[in-house]
Amino acid sequence: MAMATLRFIGRKIVLGKQGPGLAAASTLRRALATTVGSVDKQKRLLTVRWSDKSRRDSLLPLAWLRDNCQCSACFHPDTLSRLQLMENFDPKIGADSVQFDDASKTCSVTWSDGHVSTYKYDWLMRRSFDSESQQQRSLWYSGKHELWGSDYAIRRHPFDQLMKSDSSLLQFLNDMEAFGLTVVEGAPIAGTEGLRAVTDLCNRVAFPMETNYGTTFTVKSKLNPSNLAYTPARLGLHVDLPFYKDPPGIQLLHCLAQSNNITGGENFFSDGFHAANLLKVANSDAYKMLTTRLVDFYDYETDHLADFHMLCRQRVISLTSDGEYEMICYNNQVRDTYLNMPADQVQLFYDALKAFDTLLHGEQCSVSTKLKEGDIVTFDNRRVLHGRNSYTVHGTAERHLEGAYLRWDEVYSRIRRLEESVRSRQP
Amino acid sequence: MAMATLRFIGRKIVLGKQGPGLAAASTLRRALATTVGSVDKQKRLLTVRWSDKSRRDSLLPLAWLRDNCQCSACFHPDTLSRLQLMENFDPKIGADSVQFDDASKTCSVTWSDGHVSTYKYDWLMRRSFDSESQQQRSLWYSGKHELWGSDYAIRRHPFDQLMKSDSSLLQFLNDMEAFGLTVVEGAPIAGTEGLRAVTDLCNRVAFPMETNYGTTFTVKSKLNPSNLAYTPARLGLHVDLPFYKDPPGIQLLHCLAQSNNITGGENFFSDGFHAANLLKVANSDAYKMLTTRLVDFYDYETDHLADFHMLCRQRVISLTSDGEYEMICYNNQVRDTYLNMPADQVQLFYDALKAFDTLLHGEQCSVSTKLKEGDIVTFDNRRVLHGRNSYTVHGTAERHLEGAYLRWDEVYSRIRRLEESVRSRQP
Repeated sequence: MAMATLRFIGRKIVLGKQGPGLAAASTLRRALATTVGSVDKQKRLLTVRWSDKSRRDSLLPLAWLRDNCQCSACFHPDTLSRLQLMENFDPKIGADSVQFDDASKTCSVTWSDGHVSTYKYDWLMRRSFDSESQQQRSLWYSGKHELWGSDYAIRRHPFDQLMKSDSSLLQFLNDMEAFGLTVVEGAPIAGTEGLRAVTDLCNRVAFPMETNYGTTFTVKSKLNPSNLAYTPARLGLHVDLPFYKDPPGIQLLHCLAQSNNITGGENFFSDGFHAANLLKVANSDAYKMLTTRLVDFYDYETDHLADFHMLCRQRVISLTSDGEYEMICYNNQVRDTYLNMPADQVQLFYDALKAFDTLLHGEQCSVSTKLKEGDIVTFDNRRVLHGRNSYTVHGTAERHLEGAYLRWDEVYSRIRRLEESVRSRQP
Repeated sequence: MAMATLRFIGRKIVLGKQGPGLAAASTLRRALATTVGSVDKQKRLLTVRWSDKSRRDSLLPLAWLRDNCQCSACFHPDTLSRLQLMENFDPKIGADSVQFDDASKTCSVTWSDGHVSTYKYDWLMRRSFDSESQQQRSLWYSGKHELWGSDYAIRRHPFDQLMKSDSSLLQFLNDMEAFGLTVVEGAPIAGTEGLRAVTDLCNRVAFPMETNYGTTFTVKSKLNPSNLAYTPARLGLHVDLPFYKDPPGIQLLHCLAQSNNITGGENFFSDGFHAANLLKVANSDAYKMLTTRLVDFYDYETDHLADFHMLCRQRVISLTSDGEYEMICYNNQVRDTYLNMPADQVQLFYDALKAFDTLLHGEQCSVSTKLKEGDIVTFDNRRVLHGRNSYTVHGTAERHLEGAYLRWDEVYSRIRRLEESVRSRQP
């Protein structure tokens, strides 16, 4: 087993071809006032003991260090992208020496081909491979959900405030991330300003996601409707566009016209992850069915863009490989008449779907609200299901919503940049 | 065990509360000239023996039949959506009688609540639950891939032809589906017509997918580039935008300016699914690593839309739950400096990545072409990786590409509608 010879020359380790093993623990303890390291040539790991005693040792793989050289030949400073090509990268490259400089807080590695890579201490610390550092990093990723039931008081945010204040915008987006259901209130309703308010809000966050229903869509009772939402029918709890492999992340519905002359039309919402949790406890067979079986969703229509025939097979409850909730994909309206499973599974499938639907609509889960003019209800279309009571119009009143979608990728990107600018969080 | 009493009254089955079991096989044989059925009340299945002897028996679950009643109260004829609410649906509803009419080729079920559902024979046959019917249906879904190596002669399609002929457009899209790499040639290059040609082609298929780089993007050597593609550097084989959870499906790059005064800048391509197959045979450990480990991709920049900080964890080789290839997600430029795995896995990870990259670039896989002005190279960004040689400009020449993306969901939708209109394929 080839191990590094560790000879401390100042704070430089010169690595011999063979050696007796890692520096003894006592050697490392004596050197605590300065940052020191040792290389295990067999495992190809550099262990760093930081002079800052509050920091744990960092285990840094040599291949990773070479891959992430930050010099301008290896890493492009403007685009923050790796210039070094994998074609030219030797994952087994050796390190000839490692040097620590506590004054400049940098670590330099001289590689066997003569290339020198220099890393800042804090840059390395944040990228350490211990589980604590990695958990810290994972916080930048999505998934800070707070599940809710029927006692959830829908968070409300003033439109004007969001449009001008970055910290208000961030608070709104944090609420969307956590609860997946908010109302933005006081949006303009008159004229072109009213018509474009939902787009303005999208553009304040990122930009609207175009779909087969357009960049925005008008929810009214229409002649020759292309979608059941464009009729006055009751809509059960559903997500929009489940026939997309990657359905829209956030849906925004801006109420431009509502009236006392309209009976019904209340919206109701349900946290699909919460209902899935309830299902898991109450009916594990149903939960298993809905987390594994693929269900066909479809949309065969013509809207202003073109004729379309969308098809997608989705799990009603999608889990990540870690078993976390990823997405709810359920829409009874556009669930296909084709059902791709063996006949002997079908009854169990319907029993499972009925059980889930009953929980979603039940008193433990569902919250209801009737939108007021100027309200923009915004919800996580991959988690929070929405429904609508049927409505009747008396006289000339009209119910009119303008809708749009955002993708979570771009919303999370916006959150990260706002966390950085508003809260000085280090990216 | 409660089984149906089968009494053939004409071609009507009246189902009693209790009974001796299914009609004997001999009864069914005698009735072959007409369509007959039997209901298993325990399994809640209707078995139909069609008068058309070339058709196998259909097994039709009762719950599915009730769910898919096509009457105008249950199913909206304009939107082709289910009006029946799951809230009002009883998955255990009983069938009082089933009637077959070979003259009108319809089957009617009278349910225990008095509701009557009528289905056309061919509608039922196409939705049967036998594996043959279900395989037939699955052909409407994606995945008709023909993998290729370095001997692939890139399919070429004339721009004008695609823009005016639906059958040419369909042939182009079928090639994209099968091979994931084509060149559309002879696109306009002059003036605004040239600048918008890639958008025109997108709109002919569906519409461009907007991303953090815009609805379209200009690939030139730029000052203060936001992406390595906007420099003259060599780019190894990669997919675009792997920091999206759902990266763009098809990429289109329209060459507007190329010149003899530009040395280099050739493009090269590699079928990632083919390379993955080679890897699986040559190095199963590497294959396992790349199909399971999540890798961080990121993009931290400012483009014309906004500041962004995109992050996504992806498998380099994604498989479906059936073990089919779903997506290749590899881009060495924007692979993050953060690597979310235990230190002792890192060397194996780099060895695996190097092995895959070597296959991708190797002589078994890679094809090369230098784009000519008017070429629009189009490729499946989730399967076919693209790269570019570094280039040097002599004098005032400029290399200029206009790029755009399409989503596969909308492309497949377009293919389905074209299959229907051009080839009369039944949807």
